Amino acid sequence: MVAPTDAIRTKTLVLKPKMAKTAPVTPVVVVALEQTATNLSALAKHLALKDMRMANEDLLQDVFAVGKDTITPLALSNVSQEALGRIVLVVDAAMVQLATADPEPLLALQPPTAAAPVHGTASQLLDLFATLPIAYQTVDFATLGPAPAPTPAKKPAPKKAIAPVKKPMAQDDDNSGPKIGIEANKNDDFSRWYQQVLLRSEMLEYYDVSGCYIIRPWAFFVWKQVQRFFGDAIEQMGIDDVSFPMFVSNRMLEREKDHVEGFAPEVAWVTKAGSSDLEEPIAIRPTSETVMYPYFAKWIRSHRDLPLRINQWCNVVRWEFKHPQPFIRTREFLWQEGHTAHLTHQSADTEVHQILDLYRRVYEELLAVPVLPGVKSEKEKFAGAMYTTTVEGYIPATGRGIQGGTSHHLGQNFSKMFNVLVEDPAAGNEDRGPDGEAKKLHVWQNSWGLSTRVIGVMVMVHGDNKGLVMPPRVSATQVVVIPCGLTVKTTAEERSRVEAGVQSVVATLQAAGVRVKADLRDNYTPGYKFNHWELRGVPLRLEVGPKDLKAQACLAARRDTGAKQSLPLAELTTRIPALLDTIQADMFNRAKQVRDQAVRVVTDWKDFVPALNDKCLLLIPWCEQVACEEQIKERSARVNSGDEPEDDKAPSMGAKSLCIPFTQPAEPPLVPGETLCVGCGQLAKRYGLFGRSY
Amino acid sequence: MVAPTDAIRTKTLVLKPKMAKTAPVTPVVVVALEQTATNLSALAKHLALKDMRMANEDLLQDVFAVGKDTITPLALSNVSQEALGRIVLVVDAAMVQLATADPEPLLALQPPTAAAPVHGTASQLLDLFATLPIAYQTVDFATLGPAPAPTPAKKPAPKKAIAPVKKPMAQDDDNSGPKIGIEANKNDDFSRWYQQVLLRSEMLEYYDVSGCYIIRPWAFFVWKQVQRFFGDAIEQMGIDDVSFPMFVSNRMLEREKDHVEGFAPEVAWVTKAGSSDLEEPIAIRPTSETVMYPYFAKWIRSHRDLPLRINQWCNVVRWEFKHPQPFIRTREFLWQEGHTAHLTHQSADTEVHQILDLYRRVYEELLAVPVLPGVKSEKEKFAGAMYTTTVEGYIPATGRGIQGGTSHHLGQNFSKMFNVLVEDPAAGNEDRGPDGEAKKLHVWQNSWGLSTRVIGVMVMVHGDNKGLVMPPRVSATQVVVIPCGLTVKTTAEERSRVEAGVQSVVATLQAAGVRVKADLRDNYTPGYKFNHWELRGVPLRLEVGPKDLKAQACLAARRDTGAKQSLPLAELTTRIPALLDTIQADMFNRAKQVRDQAVRVVTDWKDFVPALNDKCLLLIPWCEQVACEEQIKERSARVNSGDEPEDDKAPSMGAKSLCIPFTQPAEPPLVPGETLCVGCGQLAKRYGLFGRSY
Repeated sequence: MVAPTDAIRTKTLVLKPKMAKTAPVTPVVVVALEQTATNLSALAKHLALKDMRMANEDLLQDVFAVGKDTITPLALSNVSQEALGRIVLVVDAAMVQLATADPEPLLALQPPTAAAPVHGTASQLLDLFATLPIAYQTVDFATLGPAPAPTPAKKPAPKKAIAPVKKPMAQDDDNSGPKIGIEANKNDDFSRWYQQVLLRSEMLEYYDVSGCYIIRPWAFFVWKQVQRFFGDAIEQMGIDDVSFPMFVSNRMLEREKDHVEGFAPEVAWVTKAGSSDLEEPIAIRPTSETVMYPYFAKWIRSHRDLPLRINQWCNVVRWEFKHPQPFIRTREFLWQEGHTAHLTHQSADTEVHQILDLYRRVYEELLAVPVLPGVKSEKEKFAGAMYTTTVEGYIPATGRGIQGGTSHHLGQNFSKMFNVLVEDPAAGNEDRGPDGEAKKLHVWQNSWGLSTRVIGVMVMVHGDNKGLVMPPRVSATQVVVIPCGLTVKTTAEERSRVEAGVQSVVATLQAAGVRVKADLRDNYTPGYKFNHWELRGVPLRLEVGPKDLKAQACLAARRDTGAKQSLPLAELTTRIPALLDTIQADMFNRAKQVRDQAVRVVTDWKDFVPALNDKCLLLIPWCEQVACEEQIKERSARVNSGDEPEDDKAPSMGAKSLCIPFTQPAEPPLVPGETLCVGCGQLAKRYGLFGRSY
Repeated sequence: MVAPTDAIRTKTLVLKPKMAKTAPVTPVVVVALEQTATNLSALAKHLALKDMRMANEDLLQDVFAVGKDTITPLALSNVSQEALGRIVLVVDAAMVQLATADPEPLLALQPPTAAAPVHGTASQLLDLFATLPIAYQTVDFATLGPAPAPTPAKKPAPKKAIAPVKKPMAQDDDNSGPKIGIEANKNDDFSRWYQQVLLRSEMLEYYDVSGCYIIRPWAFFVWKQVQRFFGDAIEQMGIDDVSFPMFVSNRMLEREKDHVEGFAPEVAWVTKAGSSDLEEPIAIRPTSETVMYPYFAKWIRSHRDLPLRINQWCNVVRWEFKHPQPFIRTREFLWQEGHTAHLTHQSADTEVHQILDLYRRVYEELLAVPVLPGVKSEKEKFAGAMYTTTVEGYIPATGRGIQGGTSHHLGQNFSKMFNVLVEDPAAGNEDRGPDGEAKKLHVWQNSWGLSTRVIGVMVMVHGDNKGLVMPPRVSATQVVVIPCGLTVKTTAEERSRVEAGVQSVVATLQAAGVRVKADLRDNYTPGYKFNHWELRGVPLRLEVGPKDLKAQACLAARRDTGAKQSLPLAELTTRIPALLDTIQADMFNRAKQVRDQAVRVVTDWKDFVPALNDKCLLLIPWCEQVACEEQIKERSARVNSGDEPEDDKAPSMGAKSLCIPFTQPAEPPLVPGETLCVGCGQLAKRYGLFGRSY
C-alpha cells in the first residue's frame, strides 16, 4: 500500500509513569497529530501522574507485542484484557476535531519510516477506541500550558521514535495513592468529566462492541426504581405487560413508509445463523410499531376489545453512526414502549397526556430533574405520528436541551396501514350498507417510550466535581454509616463499641425502610471512605464515633450541600427519612432554579445567538414552519458571521426546536395575527423553545 | 425448472365450511400427499365444522390471489393478515413424517398439469408455515375414520383439481356458534391441544419470524410473578441486577473452547447496519459467560471484591433448527442469568444449591409443578461447566421429562480462560515470590438460569380438556365474579341489585388483596362466560344471583376440581384467600401424585423400554459412563427389535439421562462394588433418572 503524500502525520507515544515498586505498570498511550506539541510534563500534571518516561522496548513488546518503530494505535488490539484495564489512553483534541471534518482527511498512523505505513481517518480511529473496554480521554494540548522547547516528540528520529522526557514533572499537587476521585472539571471538560464519573462511580463499563455499554448495579438500580414507579402507575391504568419478539421481517418493517424511512438507516440485520445464511435477512427492532400492529388487527375484532393497551420493557437497537455517548446515545438501549388502540381520537389524546405526565413525574419526582412538557414541531415529531409530545430537559454544563421521553398520538396512520378497524358502535341502520354491514372505523393509536437515557440526564444535571450526586429516591444506598474517631490509641473494647453502634444505627434505619449500608472495611481510613461514597453520590453519610455515642448522637453529612448536623440516635427513624425527603426536594428546587434562569424569552433575532452562546434555551414567538426551523438551525450555526458579535465562541451546532411548551410565556404576550416570528418575520403562532440539543 | 420425475406428488385443497350468513368465511386449507385419502367429512367432524365444500374460484382469487390449477401452499403468503387469522390450516401427518426422513424426499407442490411446477421438502414447507401468524394442525387422515370410496381428492382432474364434497357431514356433535373451547383432547392429540390452549386462552400468539412467539398478558403475568419471587429472593441474598449488551464480538465468543462449541451452531449473526456491511459480524448472545467474564477480570482486583454476584433479566437467542415449540423451545427467549465469582470452591458450591432450591420453589410453590433436583451426567452438563445441577419436571401426557432450570458450578474453567484471579488472602510470607507477590488464585464461578419455559411446563402439567388450569399464585385473575340467575323476567331493579352485589364482592376481595374481576358484559350468557374463564383457567368463579344475595351468600366453583360450595358473603375476606391456598396446594399434591406414580425403579433392562412406553421416568442403578448413556439412548430408540415386546408403540425417541437425583431411592439398595448398571452391566455408582425428554 502506497502512502498518499498528503496524509496527515500522527504519532503514538507510550509512556510509563513512576509508580510504587509493587504497583502494576499503568502505561499512558498518547495518540496525537505529529504537529501537536505534546507537552508531556503538562500532561502528567493534568493526569495527576508522576514522572512519565517513554516506555522501553521491553514494555512495548510485553504489552503491545510491537517495537517502537512500528507502534500504531492498532497495537491496542494486541493488549490483554487485564493490561488494557490499566492503560490510560489519551487522544489529541486536534485529532478528534478532524473526525467532524467533511470529507475527513486521511491520517498516516505510523512514522513514514516504517516499512508498512497504515492509513485511516480520525473517526475510524475513534471507532476503534470505542470498541476497547476502556475509556479514552480527549486532551487539548494547546490548553495544557506552554510547551517546553523543543517539544520532545515533534520530530521523531528514525530509530528512536520519541526522545524520553528526562525531567520529572514540576509539581504534583496530590501525592496520595491511586485516584478514586474525579480529576476532570465539570465546567471545563464536561465530556471527560461525564466519562470519569460514570466509570469511577461504577455506574458504567465500556464494552467491546462500539456504542454498547454495560450498566452496572449502581446505575441499574435507578432503572429499577423507574420501572417500579412507572410500571405500577400503568398497571393501575389497566395497561398490561407483554413481550414481543425482537426480530422483525423486512415485510413487516416496510409496511409503514414514513416510519420505516425514519429508522431504515439505523436498522441492524441478522443474516446468518450458525454457519448458514438465512433465506431472508431479519431486522432487530428499532421500535415495535410494525412488529405489533399486524396483531392489533388480529386481536381487535369489535369496539368491545378497545381500548387495547400493552407495554413492554425491552431492548431495542438503533445502529447510529454518530458518536455514541453512554446512556444518552447508544446502539442498544433499554426502554419501555407502550402501544395502545382507542375507539376515539379523544380517548387516545387523553392517554397521551396522562403518560407524558408520568414521564414528567419520573424526571421531577424520582430523578429531581425539572423538565418542560410540550409538543414537538412537525420537523421533530416521531416518524409516522400525528403529533409527538415530549418532556425536555436541560443540561446546564453544556447549555443543551435533551429530549427526556416522548408520547405519540399516531392518529389513524398505522391503523390504516395495518387494517386495524372495528364496526362503529354508534352506527344506526342508515349507516349500514346493502349487506347490513355497519360502517367501519379505524382505531386511534398511541405509542410512548422512556429509556435508560434518564440515568444519563440525572448524572449530568446533579453531578459535581466530587462525582455523582444521587437523588435519594433512586439511590441504591441512601445512607452510609462510617465509624470515625478511632485511632491507634483506641482500645479494642471502644472499637467494638463503635462498631456495635454503627450496626445498631443500620438496623434501626433498615427497620424504618431506609436503604442503608455500613462501611466497616478496616483497611481504609474514614477519609478514603468519605471520598469513596461521595464519588458514588450517596445522599447522606452518618459518622459514628466514640464521642457521638457518648452523646447518643451521630453526625449527618449531606452529599448535595455538604451541610452537617448532629442527630440524636433516638430520633433517627423520623429525622433520617425527613432529611432524605428534604434532600430530594432541595435537589429538584436547585436544578429548577438553574434551569429557569437558563430559559430566556427572545423577541429579536440579534439576541438569539448570543443567548444560545450564553448556554440558554430560547423561547421565541414562532411561525412553526419547517423551513423557518431549518433556517434558524443554519443561521445559528454560522461561524464568523458579520453582524453577530459572538465570533469567539459561536456554536458549532445550530439550534433546533425542542418543543412548543404547553405552558406558554405570559410576557411579552403573543398577539395572534400581529406578533411576528423571530426566525422569519412571518406571523407567529406560539412560543417555541429552541436550543442546542443532544 | 424441470420436475424431477421421482418427486412425491401433493395436493392443496381449499374448503369452505357452512357458516351463519353474517359470519366471515373461514377457509380450511388442507396440504397433503396426493396419495393420502383425505376423507373430508371425517375431517369436518374432526374440526367440528359443518358441510365443508370445495372453495369456488372467487374465494380462491379473493383470498389467495391464485386460481384452482395453480394453488400451492406458497399462496398462503399472499393472504392478508386479517384473512389469515380466520384460516384453518391442516397438514397431512404423512407429510410431517417425511420431514424427519434423511435425506428428505422432494415434494411436487403443484399438480403436474400446472405450467410451472414448484418443488420443495416437507421441512421447508413446515418452516414456511411456522412463519405464518397462525398455527397449523397436523391431521392423521388414516385415523380419522374410513374413507368414502372413491376418495374425492385422489385423482384430480386437469381442470377441476378436486371434486367438491357434496354430502353434508354425517353428524356434528356440537352445533353451537363459534368455538371458544378446546377441541383437541389432551391425551389423544397433545401437541394440537397445547397449541389450542395457548392460542385460545390468549397466552400466546404465533409470529411472523419462525421460532419466535408473542407472549401475551395472560402468560406474561406468570413470568412477572416468577420475576417478583425470584428477584426478591436473590436481592435478599445480595445479588445485584445489571444489564450487559446483547451483542458479542467473535473474539470474546471464542475465548472458551468447550463452551463456544456448545453454542456455535445456534448463534445468530448481525452483519449489516442500515445499508452498510459491518466490518466484523457481531453475535447475539446465546448466554453471557463470555460477554461478562472479561469484565470480571477487570473488576475483581482483590479477594475483598469477592463474592461478585450479578444477575440480569434479558432475552437471548439460540437459532435452533429443531422444530420449535412455544415456551419450550424457541429461538428467542426471556430468562434470568446469574453469574457469580467466589474465593472458594465451597462458597460457589453452596450458592449453586441455594439457587437450585429457589428454582425448585418457583416450580413447586408458584407453579404447583413437582420437580426432581439432581446433577446432570457428564454428557448432559452445560458446555464448559464443572458440574450442572438441574430441576427436572415431568409431563404426564407425553411421559417425557423436561429440564426445568439449571445451576452450574463452572469451577475455575472460565476464570483460567479469562484470567480472573486474586491474591490468596491466606498466603503467608513463605508463599511469596522473590518480588513479594503473593500466590494468585483463580476464582470459582457459577452461572444459573431460568427461562420462560416455566410457563409451558405449567400449562402442560395442569391444563385439561377445557383449557388452562392456573395455579392461584401466578394467575393474573384469581377470582372472576359473574352475575347469574337473571332472566327476561328479572326487573331492572333486581338486575341492578345483582350488579351492585357483584361489584361489592369485587371491592371486598380487592381490599383483601385478591386479584379479582367482574364479568359484567351484557352481550354474553353466564354459560358463555363460564367457558370463557374456564378456558383461561381462572382458579375460582363466584356466581352471584338474586337468590344468593337474599341468602347473603355466593356460589364458588373451583376450576381445578369443578367442586362448588356456597360461601357467606360476610366470610369472603378469609374464606376466599384460604380457598385459593387450598387450590394451590391441591394442584401441587395431585401433580406430585401423578409424577410419583410415573417414576419407576427398574433394575433389569428387559423392563426398561416397556416402562418407558408406559410413559414413565426410570430410576436405574447406573455406571455414569458417557458410552453407556449413549448406548441406552440408542437401544431404547430401536423400533421392531427382536427381543423387546413393545413393537407396537416403541418410542421413536431414545431415553436420555435426565439427572442423578439428590434423593436416591432407598429400595432396592444400591450396593457399591456389587450392584450392576442396568445399561451396561458394569458396576453401578448411583441411581440415574432416565426418560424421553424435551
